[in-house]
Amino acid sequence: MYGLIGKMLAKPGQRDALIQAMISGTQAMPGCLSYVVATDPANPDAIWITEVWSDVEHHQASLKLPAVQATIAAARPLIAGFGERFETGPVGGVGLGR
Amino acid sequence: MYGLIGKMLAKPGQRDALIQAMISGTQAMPGCLSYVVATDPANPDAIWITEVWSDVEHHQASLKLPAVQATIAAARPLIAGFGERFETGPVGGVGLGR
Repeated sequence: MYGLIGKMLAKPGQRDALIQAMISGTQAMPGCLSYVVATDPANPDAIWITEVWSDVEHHQASLKLPAVQATIAAARPLIAGFGERFETGPVGGVGLGR
Repeated sequence: MYGLIGKMLAKPGQRDALIQAMISGTQAMPGCLSYVVATDPANPDAIWITEVWSDVEHHQASLKLPAVQATIAAARPLIAGFGERFETGPVGGVGLGR
């Protein structure tokens, strides 16, 4: 499996709109086993996104899906920048099925 | 929802044993919506654990479950230390059901 942990920084006042964009546009992605969008209690403009994919190829292919391209277009004007980003190699656990 | 993102550092050569301990002991935790154990491609001794709970109370209660207490006891001698730790407030996404 292939995983990502990343922080996104919204423009002031745009965090909730960014969260909604990231959730609504990412519901039907082949090979996506987990995709969780979260607020950051330490920063009112930040969100965390944690992702688990069956493999890196499915993650890369997702970026070309029309729904994801639309999400990227909708999210871009809401984003001020990016914070931490970590790649991971998920092995197992809870919540990786559908 | 309540979330955690954290890095654990295994003693040299103990990473896979630590991963197995963390996966096998955490399969039946009430209120746990996601619990993913992953390797860290950037550090052969590190693992990432990302967690989503229905609320912080279920996370705290889990630490008292016999299976989790046994996991902590089994994992402790394998752990060299801890890295990053972030609390999150998960809002939605994929993979949060059972």
